[in-house]
Amino acid sequence: MKGHSPPLSFEILSQDPKNGKARTGMMRLGHGTVPTPAFMPVGTLGTVKSLTPGQLRETGSAICLGNTYHLYLRPGMDIIESHGGLHNFMGWQGPILTDSGGYQVFSLSSLRKIDEDGVNFRSHIDGSHHRLTPEKSIEIQETLGSDIAMCFDECPPANAPREDLRKAMARTTAWAHRCKSAHTRKEQALFGIIQGGTDQELRQEHAEALGEIDFDGFAIGGLSVGESHEDLVATTRFTAALMPENKPRYLMGVGTPLDLCEAVAAGVDMFDCVMPTRNARQATAFTSEGKLNLRNRRFRDDLGPVDPQCQCLCCTNFTRSYIRHLIVAKEILASTLLTIHNLTFYQDLMRSLRNAISEGTLDSIVSHHRALAAQKKQTKSP
Amino acid sequence: MKGHSPPLSFEILSQDPKNGKARTGMMRLGHGTVPTPAFMPVGTLGTVKSLTPGQLRETGSAICLGNTYHLYLRPGMDIIESHGGLHNFMGWQGPILTDSGGYQVFSLSSLRKIDEDGVNFRSHIDGSHHRLTPEKSIEIQETLGSDIAMCFDECPPANAPREDLRKAMARTTAWAHRCKSAHTRKEQALFGIIQGGTDQELRQEHAEALGEIDFDGFAIGGLSVGESHEDLVATTRFTAALMPENKPRYLMGVGTPLDLCEAVAAGVDMFDCVMPTRNARQATAFTSEGKLNLRNRRFRDDLGPVDPQCQCLCCTNFTRSYIRHLIVAKEILASTLLTIHNLTFYQDLMRSLRNAISEGTLDSIVSHHRALAAQKKQTKSP
Repeated sequence: MKGHSPPLSFEILSQDPKNGKARTGMMRLGHGTVPTPAFMPVGTLGTVKSLTPGQLRETGSAICLGNTYHLYLRPGMDIIESHGGLHNFMGWQGPILTDSGGYQVFSLSSLRKIDEDGVNFRSHIDGSHHRLTPEKSIEIQETLGSDIAMCFDECPPANAPREDLRKAMARTTAWAHRCKSAHTRKEQALFGIIQGGTDQELRQEHAEALGEIDFDGFAIGGLSVGESHEDLVATTRFTAALMPENKPRYLMGVGTPLDLCEAVAAGVDMFDCVMPTRNARQATAFTSEGKLNLRNRRFRDDLGPVDPQCQCLCCTNFTRSYIRHLIVAKEILASTLLTIHNLTFYQDLMRSLRNAISEGTLDSIVSHHRALAAQKKQTKSP
Repeated sequence: MKGHSPPLSFEILSQDPKNGKARTGMMRLGHGTVPTPAFMPVGTLGTVKSLTPGQLRETGSAICLGNTYHLYLRPGMDIIESHGGLHNFMGWQGPILTDSGGYQVFSLSSLRKIDEDGVNFRSHIDGSHHRLTPEKSIEIQETLGSDIAMCFDECPPANAPREDLRKAMARTTAWAHRCKSAHTRKEQALFGIIQGGTDQELRQEHAEALGEIDFDGFAIGGLSVGESHEDLVATTRFTAALMPENKPRYLMGVGTPLDLCEAVAAGVDMFDCVMPTRNARQATAFTSEGKLNLRNRRFRDDLGPVDPQCQCLCCTNFTRSYIRHLIVAKEILASTLLTIHNLTFYQDLMRSLRNAISEGTLDSIVSHHRALAAQKKQTKSP
């Protein structure tokens, strides 16, 4: 990468002719180009669990995510630094986005104590004491050397009183300024995170406050934390419409296939979620017919592929019966094959959404996934 | 495969010019050709643990092993049959050898009761009652559709009284005749198993008794069960010399790199062992410098590859530090990468042994591995 090229360039290639919000684009980063809307598999500890980097690439994933909180605790920054950054450490030479550690500090660590300057917390692994501040989070992410760094934010519980939400928001804004000031790595993009729960007034306020800072992109934070699907969609639609058009919009920690469809229709460009990878390790496959728990005895003698519509390594080489056998026998390969399948399913969905936007047929995909979800709901409540 | 071609053809390509015993060969089977001496990774439950078939192929493995006892209990023969055999079930289209189930019945199952006709036993999984006889073992292996089936044998403890060993031998001979009679699958080879512990008189007696049966190859059974390395080598040398020259010789369940070197020098052509795969899952790597426990803290900041001499995916893409991190964090990828490495190490060793035989330099490899083992022994007893 040349010394003076921007860390991120974002080109919008097509816009949905009907709703005018959904768009396809190309995001150029130091380690490669990402077609958007994009789904980023989560590689928490420097590995997308159970996959080699080559297998990850073959799922159609162009970019993956690393977790600052986890990597800071294990293996520690000295180790990552001695490798020259996370890309070399994990053997993934494609783009990487790192989160700020904020969400994990608030959801995983114990005995955290927050003040205006930062957060004291204890490691969920060994109870050791640590402190994260906006400056420290940026320093860690610069050492990780990700292509996109995220601002350190306070993540209050979704059901927190409005006054607390507003206080957390104000703090997150102050921290966003400090992150921007602390950030020195020229080849790394920096995104701001818009908070405000499902409260539209707060979301508007925060989008405006952060919009004054010259970030390379913006994220919608604080969703997918227990609110209803309807609230998730409404908040995403409302917030996405407030975000700069010419910069990538990233909906953090989301979500189900239907969530992705709705958010893409609302103009979101980037997603990350543990759902496809975690479900795979729990024996659940995402398929064109909905989710399947392959541990179920009815798959014992099912000679069909996990998903007849899928062309991944798992679906073109193995039967549901074989996958169930691996699951029952607790074989590691079950996790690998289902992770390959679930990520391929997610990346195929993203590709079909991108194609649908440029061809003006996004409506039909979204409707299809709404119908699938409604059908499932109906099956559950007889 | 044509209807009338033999299930196995074995061509000796070169012979060690010095000792005249070690040889390289080509073993042609229904599902492909295997250069010998060959190491067969163990795919107990229809998967070489943690690897896809493609990854297994890339380690240089030409043939793998399936366990009759395990596959009979899980997933059960109806499932394998509905897939058209083990090759399709596990997605491995290369050659497969299946054991007879004898060894596992005697080492894993509980409440086994042996009579002249066969063995009653209870499953180590759910305690269910089962019976294996020579005919049943062959029937199962024919359903599995392996390229090479093994005769059902009685495996007494290595330290059993001589009279018991002799009785087990006589029974194994009678069972070998019954296996040969029961065997109908024309495209499947059948091997006899020579027993007799470390007793040369018994080995000679049994080799002669089995030599009268027209098997496609012969195995040395009942070793690697606790006897000393010296006894293993002496028994292998003695027994291999009694086995037909023009048929493959298979040393079952062996062994360490040095064991393989010594046995190859004695004229053995085939091996299987869980050592490389099981060690990998226990964080231990076989390397050109000996075994390394990569969980050790001294590898925390080691930026070198697991084995500098190795060109496998693991050694060309990742550091010891990264592998140790994966191990400490209990990441699945640690097992996958170390299994890839250990099997590549074993297959590289086999390749170098094959090359050394045809080039007349086998001595130096065997000496090198003897020296490595002696060095290790010395390090252990200061």
